[in-house]
Parts: sequence; C-alpha cells; structure tokens
Amino acid sequence: MSRPKPISGYPEFLPAGRIIEQRALDILRESFELHGFGSIETRVMEPLDVLSRKGEIDKEIFTVRRLHAEEGAADEMGLHFDLTVPLARYVLENAGHLAYPFRRYQIQKVWRGERPQEGRYREFCQADIDIIGSETLAAHHDVEIPLVALEAFERLHTELGIPPVLMHVNNRKLSQGFYEGLGIDDTAAVLQRVDKFDKIGPDAVVDLLKGELGLTETVARQCVALADIQSADASFVDRVRALGVRSDLLDQGLEELATLVTTAAAAVPGRIVADLKIARGLDYYTGTVYETELVGYEKMGSVASGGRYDSLASDGKTTYPGVGYSFGVTRILVPLVTKGKLAVSRSVPTCVLVAVDSEEARPEAIATAQKLRARGIPTEVAPKADRFGKQIRYADRRGIPFVWFSSGEVKDIRSGDQLAADADAWMPPEADLTPNVGPA
Amino acid sequence: MSRPKPISGYPEFLPAGRIIEQRALDILRESFELHGFGSIETRVMEPLDVLSRKGEIDKEIFTVRRLHAEEGAADEMGLHFDLTVPLARYVLENAGHLAYPFRRYQIQKVWRGERPQEGRYREFCQADIDIIGSETLAAHHDVEIPLVALEAFERLHTELGIPPVLMHVNNRKLSQGFYEGLGIDDTAAVLQRVDKFDKIGPDAVVDLLKGELGLTETVARQCVALADIQSADASFVDRVRALGVRSDLLDQGLEELATLVTTAAAAVPGRIVADLKIARGLDYYTGTVYETELVGYEKMGSVASGGRYDSLASDGKTTYPGVGYSFGVTRILVPLVTKGKLAVSRSVPTCVLVAVDSEEARPEAIATAQKLRARGIPTEVAPKADRFGKQIRYADRRGIPFVWFSSGEVKDIRSGDQLAADADAWMPPEADLTPNVGPA
Repeated sequence: MSRPKPISGYPEFLPAGRIIEQRALDILRESFELHGFGSIETRVMEPLDVLSRKGEIDKEIFTVRRLHAEEGAADEMGLHFDLTVPLARYVLENAGHLAYPFRRYQIQKVWRGERPQEGRYREFCQADIDIIGSETLAAHHDVEIPLVALEAFERLHTELGIPPVLMHVNNRKLSQGFYEGLGIDDTAAVLQRVDKFDKIGPDAVVDLLKGELGLTETVARQCVALADIQSADASFVDRVRALGVRSDLLDQGLEELATLVTTAAAAVPGRIVADLKIARGLDYYTGTVYETELVGYEKMGSVASGGRYDSLASDGKTTYPGVGYSFGVTRILVPLVTKGKLAVSRSVPTCVLVAVDSEEARPEAIATAQKLRARGIPTEVAPKADRFGKQIRYADRRGIPFVWFSSGEVKDIRSGDQLAADADAWMPPEADLTPNVGPA
Repeated sequence: MSRPKPISGYPEFLPAGRIIEQRALDILRESFELHGFGSIETRVMEPLDVLSRKGEIDKEIFTVRRLHAEEGAADEMGLHFDLTVPLARYVLENAGHLAYPFRRYQIQKVWRGERPQEGRYREFCQADIDIIGSETLAAHHDVEIPLVALEAFERLHTELGIPPVLMHVNNRKLSQGFYEGLGIDDTAAVLQRVDKFDKIGPDAVVDLLKGELGLTETVARQCVALADIQSADASFVDRVRALGVRSDLLDQGLEELATLVTTAAAAVPGRIVADLKIARGLDYYTGTVYETELVGYEKMGSVASGGRYDSLASDGKTTYPGVGYSFGVTRILVPLVTKGKLAVSRSVPTCVLVAVDSEEARPEAIATAQKLRARGIPTEVAPKADRFGKQIRYADRRGIPFVWFSSGEVKDIRSGDQLAADADAWMPPEADLTPNVGPA
C-alpha cells in the first residue's frame, strides 16, 4: 500500500492528541455520573424513516448497505446525524423498561454528509445529556441541565486548560409570547429571521421582517429591540418590560429564564448570559434554549447547545418531553489540539520504563514491571537489551519520565536524579502517574 | 412514531447492562494502559480498496454513501469490519509520527454484513491490542501479548464474575515446519483442512487430506496426530518429537511455543494450553496464534483471538510486523447479560437521592447534593417534592442505596438504618459508591 492520506472531514488524533481527548471524555463522563446520568449507547444505524423525520436534514444522511446487496435494493439504514433522534427511538422501544425522569448521557460519534470545512466534520464525537419525562417534566430540569454543563466545562477549563465558556440562554416562550403580544401570527418565521441577527446585523433583520413577512417598521424594530437584549443577571426582565409588550406566554418565559440565569450565575459566576436573540434555528425546541461559546474562540460559533422540547417522542399514547444539551467534543478539541493550544506531557500512558541489560535478564525486568503495575503504575519493559543511553533515549522520545535499572535504581530522566528504590514500595509523584494535559 | 422494534444483529443494552459493559471496558483500558498501550481511534469508514485487500471478507462490507449522492456515483467508503485493517492504514499514514515498537489499543465498534445469529452480530464492539515494529519485532512480544490478555481476563473474572478463560495457542511455524518435514508443499491447504478438526473430527480430516490433497494415509494420519496434541506445559514438545518429523522451522516453532506456554503458565496458572490444531483459518498470521474460550461456554467458540503477522503493512520501503489480540467485547457480554448471568446492583450511577420536602426547599436540597458530589458521591435531587414513601420508592426502583433527608439524616433503604449525617463529611461504604457488578 502506498502512503494513505488523511480524508478531509474525518479527523483522527495522533496518540498524544487522543490522550487529551480521552481526558476530556473522562471529565464529561465523571461530571454526568456525579449528577446521576447513566450511559447508553445506541447502534450507529437507524432506519431511514426514523432519520428523515426532521425534514431539512435528510440531505446530509449517509446511507448504509451491504456491498453485495441485490442491485436496486432500497437503502434501508442510515448513520445517525445526532444522538437525539436515536434517543427518541430508544425511549419508545424500551419505554416500559426505563424509569422516569430518565437521565441519560451518550458519548458517540455521529455523521453528517455536509461539505467539510473549518469546524465542520463528517464524522465527529458528541456527548449528550438529556432528562426525559413521561407526559410531564418539571421546569427545574431546565435549570439543572446548564448547571451540569457549566460544571463540566469548568473542569475542562481548570484541569485541561480548555478555554472558559460563555453560555447564552433564551426561552422560546419569551420570544414567541413577545411576538404574539405584538399581534404576529407566524412567530416561527420571525424567529428564523431573528436567528440571523449576529450574521447580518439588526438593520438587515428589520428589512427581512418587513420585506418577507410584511411587518411594519415599528413592529419589526420591536422584534429587533428584544433580540438585542443581553444580561448576565435578571435585569433583562425590566428591559423587556420597558418595551411595553404583554402576554401570558411572555411572562412565563421571562420567569423561567430569570430563574435560570439567577441560579446559574450564583453557582458558576460569569459563565452565563441571557441573550434574547438566541433562537436555535429550525430545531424543535419549545422553551429554554442554550448555546455555548469558548471565550476567545467566538468565531468557532456555538460548540455546545441544547434546549427544552415538549415532545421528544410520542407513541400515540404517551408523550415524552425532555431537556438536553450536547457537547461538540470534536468541534471543541480538534481545533485546539491541531493549533497546539493544548499539550500533553507524554504520548504514552507509561510512567516507568524498566531497562533490560541483556535478554537473559528480561524475566527479572518483567517481574519488576509487574510489581510496579500491581500498585497502579503504568510500566513498560524495554523492548531490546541495550546500553543505558539508548534506553533513556527510548523513554525520552515518548516522554516517559522514569527509567528503572536492574541495579534497583530509578532515574527521573528530566532532572537526571537517580535513587535506589524498592519496586514493591516506590511511587512516582502523583502528578507523574498519568500524562499531564494543559495549555501549550 | 409507533413503538420501534429491536433490529436483529444490532444489540443494545438497557442502562443496567450498559453499566456492566462500561465496567468491562474500564478494566480492559486500565489493563492495557498499565502495560503501556496507548489509545487510538480511527474513523469508522475506510476507502473500499483498503477494506477489500483481504479478499474473502469483502462480501460482508457495509458501504456508505450520501443519501443524495448523484445516481450511479460509485460507493467509495465502507465501514471497517475489524480494527486491524484501520491500524495498518493508520500506521502507514502516520509512520513518521509514531515511535516503534508502537503499542496501541483501540476499542471501537466494527460492522459485518453477515447473517445475524446467536453470537454473531452486524455491529459489535472489539478491544484490540497490538505491538507494531518497524522492520523487526522481537519474539518476546508474542509472549507479552497473551500475558496482558490473561491479566485482563483474570480481572474480568474476579471483579465482574465473567467466566474464567482458557487460551489455546499454537504457532504456524510449528505446523508449517512439520508439514514441510513430511514433504508437503502446499502447507496452507493442509492448515485449512486441519482447522476443521473440532467440527468434523480427525477421520473426516484424514479423508479431506487424502481426497482433496492426495496425501497418503500415513502422512495424513501424521498431520492429524500433530493436531491432536495438547498440553498445559511444554510437554507437547516431546510428543511432537515422538512423531519423528524434523525441520528447522518446526524447531523454531516448538521453541517459541514452549517459551510462551511455560511463561504464561507461571504467570497465570491454568489459563493457557498449547493446542496444535489451532490454525485461525485464512487469517494472515505467520507465527504464534491465540484463541480464547470462556470456560463453561465453549459452544460460543473463540471470544478473543489474535496472533503474529510478519507484515501488518508495508509502504514498499518499510515493512511493519506486528503481534496483536482482539477481545470480542460484545460477543462476550451480550450473551452473559441477556441470559442474566451477570447482574448489577443498580441501573443508575446515583448513590444518594436527596429528598425534597417542598419545591421551596429545592435550593437547599441542591446545595446538599453539591456537597456530596464535591467529594465524589454520585447524587441526584428528587425530581418532585413528595412524601417520603414516594421518594424512597423512586430510589428503590433504580437501586439507589441511600436517601438523604432535609432533617440531615441519611437512610440506607436496604437495611432501613437511618442516621444523622453531615453532607460535608459523610461517605457511603466504598462498595456502595458505584454500582456493583457480579454473577447473578
């Protein structure tokens, strides 16, 4: 085989980058489990009719068929493009076996056939949390989800050096109630155009609302004025009130969003902002919506998002409402790792290399290695009996911090310090036991 | 959506089963990393020409294409059917960035379009370890791989209650050298037929060797006599010698296999046997081969296997030999979980449910939960303010062992014991912190 080339849109890490990814996934998993979310994995393929339910997105589906299927046989399965559609199917399929509210997390790859470009991939990893109710789901879960998310992001920041985040939150009831209060019928159409606020600016949105939806200048300006409101506390409520629009749905949205922002600001200060232009496009959210940017990397767009949906799924008898949030793991990590913003102290898990003087002494080296492993120290035995210089170079090339010699001495190859040690008792410094990830 | 049905060949766990799978995967990962294997993940799709290199298997490939690709556009990618072909491609693609011997593990799903049946899946998880050299790879790695594998299986057995294993090992040099010593040219053809020993019995193999390959009765009987040799120590060497065949390749195979069996029997007693009929069919192994059965579940066939290959990959200039081993994670776990042979103490990670007296008291309950989580205790807050009986039932249905009351007391709902406790100091018994997996 000649040397293969990477395929655009399908990022793969070298071993060092993969260690960073594993550490990030471990932190997400730990955060989720600490909050009582249990893992599920679903098959990567779903029947096409399950995947195409959402309309718009079906052009991006990858279909799957057996290479030697009969000519002309219909494609029946496709790769999932998110983890929400498979969750809905899983909940319906196993409805009687799940306990509600069902708190699940799911960390899997998803596939989208869109044109690969910076920050957009055809294969990428997502980490989702959702809380699913049977018939009803209390509003306090809308507050819980961003707290879990912000706590996880805070650990990614402090433990790995991933940039801090700013979460932008809104509530569709608020926007919809406001539009209704203005006498607008097709509130979804307004929402879609307001969603372009950041891209095209307020004046262009006013033009769209007037030109495409026939709103008056005054009403269009009111919609844009609402979208322009941001606050890191509940002060947005007064600013909305000041616009003079009234509706019950607006009141409900304002109250839910104020509770969310106040609670989150107290728990994780400085990481959340009410941002009334957040609409989440054509997605199926019906209440709270979340978007999240990495501070200093706003150009990457939202790297984690989610929201409340009144009906994740329904089997005709029972409806399952939910609230969820999805971390774009690949979307966050690939740019940071590729640009060298994150680094790891070594490219292997190994903490100690046990040197081998001669092939005859290999069993002794293996025995030493087993003693170290028995106490949780990742250890390799040198693959070749060689002089010490070569063995140290072997360790150095991989970033392995310690070399153990048959003399019963262990050398820290970074400092050069060499000390007598007992394989049944010696421990490396805690910080050296596993590779260290941090800002480069 | 009406209630969807499971699709045959695509097993999915309920949350409790998934906890068992996660625990097994954690043990594998820990075992691999303790031995200095680093993780990689490769994209799930490979170009079809990469996948079809191995001939036979191409009929089982799933091809992937965009739903709205042009009519008649060629399928260009397929889902990987193992983790060895992607490893070979990854090594060639990143050859200059890897340090050799390259020790990697890879835990991913793979897909095969074969007819689903008991123990055969279309989507299943494998956990592979391989050691890849550049040009050369020392023979002692053939001994190292089964030691890592047996250590991992031993932990799966003692920590999770998965049945113990018996690993059957052979060496292609031994068989090939023996056949050559008998004057046979097409040794691969003999190997293929001897591979049917267990299925059709020794007499039928003799018939095949005579009828299809034209061997004499005497020579055919010699081949079958070799295949019939098994020993849990190096005594197989004398039994092979007693058959009176000689060749250098045979000597080399005998020596390698004797070293392997002797070392492994000393390290993990009773778990390995030299079994000279093991051939691994049409696979591309060139030396040591491994197969592994669960004791008491031999009918499931080999659930983990591997071997030595002189050339995993070559770019024309450099050849990469390797030795590897693959755990059939789904193949092992799905039957054991489905048949109820393994069980878990709860279906959620949650250790403590913090009860909520009234919605007004929810913030206090959340604060208590945060104190417990800060010390690593997975905690949920009751989703609904309710009387205590209902909250205990909520915990009980999920197997959550402890309920925390606003009175500052914590109840073990299994024993009924209720004690005053401080959320900043109380710890559950170590054994209750995470769900317990064991034989049912």
